[in-house]
Amino acid sequence: MTALNETHDPLAQSWVASANAPDTDFPLQNLPFGVFRRQGSAEPFRGGVAIGDQVVDLAALQALGVFEGEAAAALAAAAGPTLNPLMALGAPAASALRLALSRALRAGSPLAARLDACLLAQARAEYAVPAQIGDYTDFYTSIHHATNVGRLFRPDNPLLPNYQWVPIGYHGRCSSIGVSGQAFPRPRGQTRAPDAERPTLGPSRRLDYELELGVFIGRGNALGEPVPLDEAEDHVFGLCLFNDWSARDLQAWEYQPLGPFLSKNFASTLAPWIVTLEALAPYRVGWTRPAADPQPLAYLESPALRAAGAFDIRLEVALETAAMRARGRAPARLSLTSFRHAYWSVSQMVAHHTVNGCNLSPGDLLGSGTQSGPTPAEAGSLLELTRGGKEALSLPDGETRIFLDDGDTVILRGWCEREGYRRIGFGECRGTVLPARG
Amino acid sequence: MTALNETHDPLAQSWVASANAPDTDFPLQNLPFGVFRRQGSAEPFRGGVAIGDQVVDLAALQALGVFEGEAAAALAAAAGPTLNPLMALGAPAASALRLALSRALRAGSPLAARLDACLLAQARAEYAVPAQIGDYTDFYTSIHHATNVGRLFRPDNPLLPNYQWVPIGYHGRCSSIGVSGQAFPRPRGQTRAPDAERPTLGPSRRLDYELELGVFIGRGNALGEPVPLDEAEDHVFGLCLFNDWSARDLQAWEYQPLGPFLSKNFASTLAPWIVTLEALAPYRVGWTRPAADPQPLAYLESPALRAAGAFDIRLEVALETAAMRARGRAPARLSLTSFRHAYWSVSQMVAHHTVNGCNLSPGDLLGSGTQSGPTPAEAGSLLELTRGGKEALSLPDGETRIFLDDGDTVILRGWCEREGYRRIGFGECRGTVLPARG
Repeated sequence: MTALNETHDPLAQSWVASANAPDTDFPLQNLPFGVFRRQGSAEPFRGGVAIGDQVVDLAALQALGVFEGEAAAALAAAAGPTLNPLMALGAPAASALRLALSRALRAGSPLAARLDACLLAQARAEYAVPAQIGDYTDFYTSIHHATNVGRLFRPDNPLLPNYQWVPIGYHGRCSSIGVSGQAFPRPRGQTRAPDAERPTLGPSRRLDYELELGVFIGRGNALGEPVPLDEAEDHVFGLCLFNDWSARDLQAWEYQPLGPFLSKNFASTLAPWIVTLEALAPYRVGWTRPAADPQPLAYLESPALRAAGAFDIRLEVALETAAMRARGRAPARLSLTSFRHAYWSVSQMVAHHTVNGCNLSPGDLLGSGTQSGPTPAEAGSLLELTRGGKEALSLPDGETRIFLDDGDTVILRGWCEREGYRRIGFGECRGTVLPARG
Repeated sequence: MTALNETHDPLAQSWVASANAPDTDFPLQNLPFGVFRRQGSAEPFRGGVAIGDQVVDLAALQALGVFEGEAAAALAAAAGPTLNPLMALGAPAASALRLALSRALRAGSPLAARLDACLLAQARAEYAVPAQIGDYTDFYTSIHHATNVGRLFRPDNPLLPNYQWVPIGYHGRCSSIGVSGQAFPRPRGQTRAPDAERPTLGPSRRLDYELELGVFIGRGNALGEPVPLDEAEDHVFGLCLFNDWSARDLQAWEYQPLGPFLSKNFASTLAPWIVTLEALAPYRVGWTRPAADPQPLAYLESPALRAAGAFDIRLEVALETAAMRARGRAPARLSLTSFRHAYWSVSQMVAHHTVNGCNLSPGDLLGSGTQSGPTPAEAGSLLELTRGGKEALSLPDGETRIFLDDGDTVILRGWCEREGYRRIGFGECRGTVLPARG
């Protein structure tokens, strides 16, 4: 588990002035990684690091040749169109690069003038999915979400018997994962009305978002070689915001017996910035399990997990409707929760995923599953907020929603705050529903 | 749909003598694609085509510069370490290359002497997974398999209500897909005995194979743009044998509500050779649905499908136990069926997968799901052959099996035969169970 070091110093300031604003997501203490290029250009995408309202161009920085040793090797691995090579180097390499960047961006750094030439305003950047994702697995780590959804189908027995023992997960689709700003047509598919004899094909009428965190894998493991729980975080590069859109009506008709398929694979949206586990170190909290609940099997349990295996990451969903955009209104917050409520930790996801010998590779993506907190207002999906589509949500100016309308933009945000430390953020994950085609 | 042409001429002979043997899988009329290198070498893998007991080295052939036009462009795309570039060119390019190869390998070809220098004996070759598989989707197209398995759980109502309407599919794991010859440790995982209060972690005791065909996608489709049924086969490169190993005890405990996960993702094994749809043209049969069954929705239905949308591919499972190997005994056949019994066709898989806008990419893999025929002896898994693990299978020399033992090698074979045409085959897909680790 990453220790605190000088990169977490809350008093350190940057010569990039915007990084010192109290409300920035990207102070010197964060330094998240992404992949970018100049907006509207045909330049190759390359690695970048967010600082204030700027991006450090890692390819340009590499050309300067100012870093040395492990940091220079990590920088070279981060200068290409995907971060997989950097991820493959493992956590110590990313940490060395982060330390070198922290020092170079600190107020008074002798490198300031040379690095200044490597900055691009985020307002002028466009982003790509930051890694070639070999496999994407979605977990189901929020017991509140599992219970809320289960209650809609089985009011007396909402939670299945395996939930408290197994970090439930399933495989998702990589090809339709896009980056913040993604717009996709409302999916069409089969649904069957409760009283109908046969299904029909048409646009989904119960289109939903899912508030998730994505976990990018760093160093991989070989096929047949499980990753023990206490080594699991050595295989994690970092976390980012993730919206795993879902068509609830398609899902209800298709998902038995092999799970969700077309109800999920039409689009999933990632934020551009991956916050490293090292940057998240100050916001760790102990992983707990209510004493009345079954405690995990030995391969999912350790003192280190109990001490600091969870992360207090605030997670927010906001909705911007077409009418709000037309009126210049701010998006409306739909819910706010924290990743600390997850029933299963990041390390447990990795340990469970590999216990059967399954190999994870650098750049693989694990979704946390929808994050819902213990109270109804903390729910991470419309399915929950509207109690299965039965109670409309009220929005400003008399608008209401049960599920998503065409033109709706869903905005996920995330941040960490702790007394004595700088606030850091995850940027935004935005996605927009277009009308169905055809 | 591919028309018959000179490459299907049953009388054509090759100057590669072994290709003219009546029982070869790889006569001149087949020409399947794979990726190979010299066994035990550190050479780069490159594209190859099977002919008799030889492989045509497509990188060496390209260096000769003897092909022209579209065939030359396709050859260049097939000379690298994966077939994705060839697949991306689409069916006409692969067809042009196949025609040029057919002519060059035909008895009397003026190119014979030069091509002879591009041959490597298959006995001296090793193979790789032939494409970088971006996403792997497993379908469930055998109604006999779905009914056999459903009956074990729901004797009175074996088939779920969606089965006859929806080509059920789910996402699988790419990273653990290997090529014939793959050996993997028996997976460990959670299981819970019916009368137990808590689950335990241990090696699977109900390890099974699944007899499947893999469908490799050729030309992709853009996100948001469904592929109509009658264009679906234009997006298919070819078919190969595929064993989607399954740990039935892990599956029973984990699969609710999101489907199979660790019970499947520890290993899946592909045969080295992909037989193109063009090579399969003579073995097409009409796609039928019993008149008493629901007929498909419009997007899954067409006259072309009814006329010739299915393939009569014979599929066999054989088992070689450690004892058989020690005694030099031949493997024992466990079952024999045909892909013609599939309830959903290859084209229906593609049309359904994309109807919601999901994008398929060159090199994506679709599994057919376990292929079981209408009679018990045609079942494509041990789960079915042993009636849920209740009736042991008898093997030669007094051996028996309920599920797979350590040291067992499962061998899938496939071939097509039709009066008036050459027999063509799919080679072998072999995989071996090693003892659990740790």
